[in-house]
Amino acid sequence: MRCEGMPLIYFDNAATSRIKPEPVYAALNYYLREIGTSPGRGSYKLSVQASRMLYQSRKTVADFFGIPDSSCVYFSKSSTESINLFFNGLLSEGDHVIISCYEHNAVLRPIHSLSENSGVTYSVLTDDDLYSQDLSKLEKYISPHTKVVALTLASNLTGQLVYRREIGEFFKNKGISVFVDASQGGGKHLINMSKDSVDYLAFTSHKDLLGVPGSGGLCCLAELKIPPLIQGGTGLFGDLYMNPEVYPEAYEAGTLNMPAIWSLKAGIDYVQENEEKINSKEKQLTELLVEGLKSLPNTIVYNADKPRVPTICFNVRGKKSNEVVHILDQNDICVRGGIHCTILAHKTLGTVQTGTIRASLNYNNTSEEIEKFITCINEIR
Amino acid sequence: MRCEGMPLIYFDNAATSRIKPEPVYAALNYYLREIGTSPGRGSYKLSVQASRMLYQSRKTVADFFGIPDSSCVYFSKSSTESINLFFNGLLSEGDHVIISCYEHNAVLRPIHSLSENSGVTYSVLTDDDLYSQDLSKLEKYISPHTKVVALTLASNLTGQLVYRREIGEFFKNKGISVFVDASQGGGKHLINMSKDSVDYLAFTSHKDLLGVPGSGGLCCLAELKIPPLIQGGTGLFGDLYMNPEVYPEAYEAGTLNMPAIWSLKAGIDYVQENEEKINSKEKQLTELLVEGLKSLPNTIVYNADKPRVPTICFNVRGKKSNEVVHILDQNDICVRGGIHCTILAHKTLGTVQTGTIRASLNYNNTSEEIEKFITCINEIR
Repeated sequence: MRCEGMPLIYFDNAATSRIKPEPVYAALNYYLREIGTSPGRGSYKLSVQASRMLYQSRKTVADFFGIPDSSCVYFSKSSTESINLFFNGLLSEGDHVIISCYEHNAVLRPIHSLSENSGVTYSVLTDDDLYSQDLSKLEKYISPHTKVVALTLASNLTGQLVYRREIGEFFKNKGISVFVDASQGGGKHLINMSKDSVDYLAFTSHKDLLGVPGSGGLCCLAELKIPPLIQGGTGLFGDLYMNPEVYPEAYEAGTLNMPAIWSLKAGIDYVQENEEKINSKEKQLTELLVEGLKSLPNTIVYNADKPRVPTICFNVRGKKSNEVVHILDQNDICVRGGIHCTILAHKTLGTVQTGTIRASLNYNNTSEEIEKFITCINEIR
Repeated sequence: MRCEGMPLIYFDNAATSRIKPEPVYAALNYYLREIGTSPGRGSYKLSVQASRMLYQSRKTVADFFGIPDSSCVYFSKSSTESINLFFNGLLSEGDHVIISCYEHNAVLRPIHSLSENSGVTYSVLTDDDLYSQDLSKLEKYISPHTKVVALTLASNLTGQLVYRREIGEFFKNKGISVFVDASQGGGKHLINMSKDSVDYLAFTSHKDLLGVPGSGGLCCLAELKIPPLIQGGTGLFGDLYMNPEVYPEAYEAGTLNMPAIWSLKAGIDYVQENEEKINSKEKQLTELLVEGLKSLPNTIVYNADKPRVPTICFNVRGKKSNEVVHILDQNDICVRGGIHCTILAHKTLGTVQTGTIRASLNYNNTSEEIEKFITCINEIR
């Protein structure tokens, strides 16, 4: 089957937002052509200007995620790198961590690796734990060694919001630090770390924040002092044989990807300036998609009743997810199938064998695209 | 003092090559606007196309550095990250490493950190060791625990070539692996790993390879199996709780910076197509600079007689390096002063207190710029 005459429909925004706002491309090109130097690597004017732009970028990130001190924004290449920095640096033998059943492999794998190699242990909150109004259910996961709870802001698989303030407050009141992986939903302005009881947050540039790939980071409510993941040139205290205990520089050894960071700033600026427009468009498109998929006799839609970002997870009865992805691809529709780097979530949904199809939207999509998508799915037998 | 009417003179190419060839900008923008998806993160056509472009990029890097198997190119954000991956993964308690007195902090610091925390030891080759024709001088550094020798291709401070094939062969014949940090000189086509006795090589995109910041990597003569530095989503084997032992994917968790990788490919293509032009221009400019600086009564030029890349290190008598950098900056000349993240080299030169001035050229510079530079230096009192 093939629905003819269809232009490319990109429903894989949870992997990366493919179309960036023009100011993001412009910021990237401006940095590359007009500045082009590295911050903190020279004292001449053009390098000082680069350092100023780095400061402005940190400030934008800090304001966006609601932390008071922009020097507690530690840039990296990706949320994955920042998550590894955080857990590898924070945890040591005997420590215990609580995570959710919706964590992406970017959180599960560093922690599981520490459990295999460094004597760290971890527990996994169930779907029921996460959404129950009875927070006392969480008590049983806490031990005197529990150091941090790590929750994704939204599931990369189902789109459902996972972190909520009440859970953060519950753990924080027990003296446990709260870490949020904001890779999914991080550009939806869903979280203010100061108000929402979040101590640490990892973000990536190239998804909801609408920047280009190559930058991400860790935001902290207060200065974090842990061993760096990467040792190397820091631009300052070059006479020391190891990274200086000076932050953020200690966590940012090597040349920073400043063009990507400057374009991230432009992405966040765009998100903030267009927040209402983006949110209402995405909400409308998501409702259309959920209702459309639910109305079909041949689909199973997962966890669609939960508050969410514009990502939907479903299957077509009797088909493996990758078969459906292939049919959709023949119709120039880009969605992802399989396990989506989140095995815990598949165990929760009972979809380890089939995988699932994920359709993830953003404000660049249209209702016409969704109608065509639903028509295609309906024709799959 | 101020030499009037001078446009910006950029002599900090060892920090980053500020001006990229037009095809590099074009490749970056093509990838962002026309492809825009991530390799290995979907089975739809546009993601498969991304995977093809990733393969082509690996192939270009492999061919350039002379390794037979492009799947032994492991991409990262920078040479610094790759160096950390390599040493952290390779070395464990009891291992011994040999480095040179010209290593950048990107090599010194990861190894020193392992010596502080993991029972690794290291020795440092002197300038005399490196350039002596009597290789038996190197014997005394070898112990039964010596696992790897790590040498920079060129000094980031003085520009002198440090690695040479004879040293590589000497150590390799003793069963010791050879690692080269090609951050400096990596785009000068000075090295072919297969022919030059190099087992492992780290490179970065944004210096001599003329790409944009945000990509780098590790090249290996044969598949390397060590624990990854970063655990996270690998796109394949998503059901495993740790990165799969499948390479290169195991070392590349998280979204790859594919726009930067594609522009790196364009940079290497440009370097290869224009190799003769670039090399002869840089050689001519470097000679002009060295002779000019040497002819002045108020300068000390360091190690200028050694074979080199177009980076020169000097001081003005009676001045701290940063004073001179400041005067040059007032004349719109961009050079770097201070320690340059290479404390070992300063100990070798005896310039820990003063720092040094580094002028690093590339083919975009002109002889007029060098004449103006020499005039300015001559006027400093």
